[in-house]
Amino acid sequence: MTRLKCAILGATGMVGQRFVQLLEGHPYFEPILLAASEKREGQLYSDSVNWVIEGDVPGYARDMTLASLDANGISRALSPDVDGKSKRGAALAFSALPANIADQLETELAGKGVWVFSNASAHRMDANVPLLVPEVNADHLALLEGQTAPGKIVTNANCSATGLVLGLAPLKPFGIKRVIVTTYQALSGAGHTGVPSTDIMGNVIPYIAGEEEKMEEETRRILGTYEGGIVKGHPAEVMANCARVPVTDGHLEAVTVEFEGQVSRESIVDVFQTYNGPAEVAELPSAPATPVIFTKEEDRPQPKKDCWHGGKGRKAGMAVVVGRLEVKGNWARFFILSHNTVRGAAGGSLLNAELAHSKGLLGVNH
Amino acid sequence: MTRLKCAILGATGMVGQRFVQLLEGHPYFEPILLAASEKREGQLYSDSVNWVIEGDVPGYARDMTLASLDANGISRALSPDVDGKSKRGAALAFSALPANIADQLETELAGKGVWVFSNASAHRMDANVPLLVPEVNADHLALLEGQTAPGKIVTNANCSATGLVLGLAPLKPFGIKRVIVTTYQALSGAGHTGVPSTDIMGNVIPYIAGEEEKMEEETRRILGTYEGGIVKGHPAEVMANCARVPVTDGHLEAVTVEFEGQVSRESIVDVFQTYNGPAEVAELPSAPATPVIFTKEEDRPQPKKDCWHGGKGRKAGMAVVVGRLEVKGNWARFFILSHNTVRGAAGGSLLNAELAHSKGLLGVNH
Amino acid sequence: MTRLKCAILGATGMVGQRFVQLLEGHPYFEPILLAASEKREGQLYSDSVNWVIEGDVPGYARDMTLASLDANGISRALSPDVDGKSKRGAALAFSALPANIADQLETELAGKGVWVFSNASAHRMDANVPLLVPEVNADHLALLEGQTAPGKIVTNANCSATGLVLGLAPLKPFGIKRVIVTTYQALSGAGHTGVPSTDIMGNVIPYIAGEEEKMEEETRRILGTYEGGIVKGHPAEVMANCARVPVTDGHLEAVTVEFEGQVSRESIVDVFQTYNGPAEVAELPSAPATPVIFTKEEDRPQPKKDCWHGGKGRKAGMAVVVGRLEVKGNWARFFILSHNTVRGAAGGSLLNAELAHSKGLLGVNH
Amino acid sequence: MTRLKCAILGATGMVGQRFVQLLEGHPYFEPILLAASEKREGQLYSDSVNWVIEGDVPGYARDMTLASLDANGISRALSPDVDGKSKRGAALAFSALPANIADQLETELAGKGVWVFSNASAHRMDANVPLLVPEVNADHLALLEGQTAPGKIVTNANCSATGLVLGLAPLKPFGIKRVIVTTYQALSGAGHTGVPSTDIMGNVIPYIAGEEEKMEEETRRILGTYEGGIVKGHPAEVMANCARVPVTDGHLEAVTVEFEGQVSRESIVDVFQTYNGPAEVAELPSAPATPVIFTKEEDRPQPKKDCWHGGKGRKAGMAVVVGRLEVKGNWARFFILSHNTVRGAAGGSLLNAELAHSKGLLGVNH
Repeated sequence: MTRLKCAILGATGMVGQRFVQLLEGHPYFEPILLAASEKREGQLYSDSVNWVIEGDVPGYARDMTLASLDANGISRALSPDVDGKSKRGAALAFSALPANIADQLETELAGKGVWVFSNASAHRMDANVPLLVPEVNADHLALLEGQTAPGKIVTNANCSATGLVLGLAPLKPFGIKRVIVTTYQALSGAGHTGVPSTDIMGNVIPYIAGEEEKMEEETRRILGTYEGGIVKGHPAEVMANCARVPVTDGHLEAVTVEFEGQVSRESIVDVFQTYNGPAEVAELPSAPATPVIFTKEEDRPQPKKDCWHGGKGRKAGMAVVVGRLEVKGNWARFFILSHNTVRGAAGGSLLNAELAHSKGLLGVNH
Repeated sequence: MTRLKCAILGATGMVGQRFVQLLEGHPYFEPILLAASEKREGQLYSDSVNWVIEGDVPGYARDMTLASLDANGISRALSPDVDGKSKRGAALAFSALPANIADQLETELAGKGVWVFSNASAHRMDANVPLLVPEVNADHLALLEGQTAPGKIVTNANCSATGLVLGLAPLKPFGIKRVIVTTYQALSGAGHTGVPSTDIMGNVIPYIAGEEEKMEEETRRILGTYEGGIVKGHPAEVMANCARVPVTDGHLEAVTVEFEGQVSRESIVDVFQTYNGPAEVAELPSAPATPVIFTKEEDRPQPKKDCWHGGKGRKAGMAVVVGRLEVKGNWARFFILSHNTVRGAAGGSLLNAELAHSKGLLGVNH
Repeated sequence: MTRLKCAILGATGMVGQRFVQLLEGHPYFEPILLAASEKREGQLYSDSVNWVIEGDVPGYARDMTLASLDANGISRALSPDVDGKSKRGAALAFSALPANIADQLETELAGKGVWVFSNASAHRMDANVPLLVPEVNADHLALLEGQTAPGKIVTNANCSATGLVLGLAPLKPFGIKRVIVTTYQALSGAGHTGVPSTDIMGNVIPYIAGEEEKMEEETRRILGTYEGGIVKGHPAEVMANCARVPVTDGHLEAVTVEFEGQVSRESIVDVFQTYNGPAEVAELPSAPATPVIFTKEEDRPQPKKDCWHGGKGRKAGMAVVVGRLEVKGNWARFFILSHNTVRGAAGGSLLNAELAHSKGLLGVNH
Repeated sequence: MTRLKCAILGATGMVGQRFVQLLEGHPYFEPILLAASEKREGQLYSDSVNWVIEGDVPGYARDMTLASLDANGISRALSPDVDGKSKRGAALAFSALPANIADQLETELAGKGVWVFSNASAHRMDANVPLLVPEVNADHLALLEGQTAPGKIVTNANCSATGLVLGLAPLKPFGIKRVIVTTYQALSGAGHTGVPSTDIMGNVIPYIAGEEEKMEEETRRILGTYEGGIVKGHPAEVMANCARVPVTDGHLEAVTVEFEGQVSRESIVDVFQTYNGPAEVAELPSAPATPVIFTKEEDRPQPKKDCWHGGKGRKAGMAVVVGRLEVKGNWARFFILSHNTVRGAAGGSLLNAELAHSKGLLGVNH
């Protein structure tokens, strides 16, 4: 099968590196363009990137020449040649762009027929843009009908919201009334140079700009219902307290949930142990063997030990781990852990693209 | 003024070291006995202790000889000589004992007329034992009338509960209905060797044995009402999620409070900014200048930067810092930070003893 | 081919866990006995062990019942039944014992015909015991002729000395006169609970008991010459400064070498790039693809990034990485990194056993 | 006594903050100008600075308005008004500038009659510029005679070199032939945002740009001899291996010294215990009670515990601590610890200015 050609936008950052890593040898998609800030234009990827995640720069990417992230640069790099012989056109792009750049650029790309699977926050709350966590709300893809451009934009959620909704989705049948979530967020969530070591070593910083708002509104949207061309947010009240801790990878969250009525520990254990997304998702190349892993060990999940669950290869890091469950009356409490730059970023975006492709939505190479 | 003679039980541990440090040159109390595990009996304090807190072993303690913690050892060391001339008797003891040892030993000491100010959890929930945070519930001292032994036992709260009640006390007038608290607890709370470095470096451990239960029941008790010889717990529901983080000192807590009715940000800021304990407490040697410090900085309080507030000398570390306040409807959210081995342990115990002494409750040197 | 049965002594500690991990599915050896301290006797391995290294307890070990480490316990567990039908006897044992226990126990086992491959320091400097780093001094195995017991003892070097000799071996042809080495040693070298977090977080501890002496004497012995039934230590003067740093795995060492005469950078780069142990070693299952990896990157090797080189599976972590080379006059300076609990402990011991087995020295299952 | 007016250049960086802190209430010098990068011009210091060191922004500095660091900005801010009535002129400036800016700007200021005490490396090796560590080479001030500008430039050494020379100075009488030093350098040495947390957490980075060269050449210069208008470098060969470790403050160094002849442990202990700089230095406000503190504890000095020695107030952090001494033949080995942003930066510069002032070299307020 011919793989669809794809671009990676913001390819040198931490999430960009994950895209480069996870797309190595991908069965559906073939990266043909890596784009980064203008000053890197023309540099070899392996020379330009400061590779900070595990392993080495994948072989396929080493000698690729970086394109400039400005719209012209990408457009030039992505467009088919006039004579139609070019192999350069890409059917889709993965975006690890900063929100301020993503806003316009993603729209422009969609206007040119490129599908954009974006980790940026710019379009997440747009009425017609699916904010997708496939196991949870695959049906929200229907929002795409409202997008009129030839390419479409599909977003994945904020890294903390992703973990949260995967832990809440199994509980929806019990009637979620209120969610109080407090986070222990890893450094990689802020990017390679986001948190100076002198600030965070032996410390906790109880503030991440914009994070609490995102967790609150994105969670309600993802858990919401698609009806009549729009997504109606879930009625639960969500309150988030976000903090940065000196951990490299893995967002841990303490979740306290109020239900409409009384719940039993047994029933909650049961839904956590049996939860699976829709079958069409479970078969995707990046879908974890089990999206939610429930543990009864008294001191788990822990970021250092548990953030790579989900399977081997690109499935690794795609499952979340739930533990420390306590249930009483209308309330349940638990901790949830997710890999923030895999499940909560590049891996989530990739799973979204796989879903769209498996449903036959993506076009062909240009 | 003659200082009252006191003993420090468990003097070589981390909290014991704080007692030794805070009692140097204390205006009310003079340490005459340091007790530790049997194997250290007869050793010089400075030889035996592995001093792990800031600064050096105080001069007065260096050459004191350790007594054994078994009841006989302490009894022997504390008792007045038969001829009544001994200067060895102590009027009070500060206990940094493990709960399992504290249970019987503290009772025995009280039986011999020694007042025990204990950081141990053993007697905290006993009906007649004040669980005291002086700014919050000084009136609970009245419980002592129910203790029949010649000496009395007064306890301070668990390190995490102490910080929490200082943050909640100003809010009591608004009608606290429910409290969800999630902790980021420092390593020193587990003692010097409590957490192996290989477990916690770059990690978070979402479990501290017994901590959540203590926070829940102690908080309700401290915020409760003394009436007719007993303390009636506060009706608020308290739910605690506790985790250890790689921070040396300072317990940070994310607190979410539901009130009986709607509250305004202004009114809550106001009570935090104006809160003070009773005047009789404010004048004590270890009382912080302001027990609750409210900050509007967007990323504070932080353990590394904010855990030493309260004043100079033994007041340092006795204030808690509240920040990141968000208010909406019936709910308020904020972070609170307290120094866990000072305010939350030895300093708290010492403040309790100062209060008892200032009220003329403590006897005389034996 | 029938695998030789082996025991793992001290199987629940950090190095013991590595043995358990590396021996999973080993082509030569099959673990049939896991022994630990007496209090664990009879417990299932998976229940008893606090598994602290990456991954999970290997399936084969989960349900093995722990034997007691006292000589009787092991003897009982290892001995063939009187009727000769038992499958319990082991041909060899891997020892992760503390030195004080190893001394006598390893001797007793050898006396009973069991070959002991030991990571303990007890017998390393015994005249007839090979202190073996196969790529460097495979010929020292000849010392075994001097051991009269039916089983033999073979030791691997201290974790820091192992890395050092692998970096020095390629340089021997230039005439090593003096070595000054300063270490940055990982926490895992002290075992799971060896370094309390409150001591080492944000700190360096410039002392590791006995380490400097071991590095000095073991290095000279390993680099020494086998002649006439004894090993004559290398004449180089070795001076070691050892310190613990807050790193989980990977001992980094700054090595400064004085040579007998002038050396050129080119010639030293060349030996580092071309160094390989003897062919008989290179073919062993745990032998790294290249034992010494030379890097020209300006800021490498780094423990967090470089300690897993050597290949996949049980080869991973078996190579050392050399970088930051500076050469001037008679002197060369470089940094070297080795995985302390793999190459410097369990993996080293295993490679020793593989060498002995490939040379046909090991007997048969009892 | 009227205090001399001074400027602080680069006042918002980490070393700049130390200058601001140490100059609070200084008996000789009164800061009247704080200068920072152009974009901060006109901002209040307390609004502009991200204060990252212990304590709070000193009161005197809070409301000072930042001047721009370009030459015009400083010149304007420092110059006396034309009518001669201005109080704005400063007699001296403390420079925490980056080397590239310092080069020209410091020269210009000296040209205008301002004495510059610089922590920048730009002029350290200039033939006529004293590279001063007062206890060690106060006589090098004589180099100033070679500076023709009305103001003079005096530099302090690189943070690592400062610690090293204080440890070596007492040993000069034994004839130092060769020094091999390996560092464990703190994060604050790279400035507030110098080292991303994702790079250094749980890691060691064996590279600091330019540091090894500086340590080698500066050490020889400081230990050198002033003769006939020039400083002749010390003949010892110095080899430095520099690495960054996850420690906040305090550079630890493992020092190995070869002497011209044999030395005894006793004699070396003796010089370390009795070493003091010249009396004229010992009386300065920032001079430590004892510049070199020798410890016999087996595991000291440690950055977290020992970097604040020297006395109270601005003397704190001005002493170095030497320990772990081993002596054999012609060689001695020891660890030395110094506070890198106090003794090794702002405090060192300040001590230099105090020395110049006490010798009557500094002029008057302009």
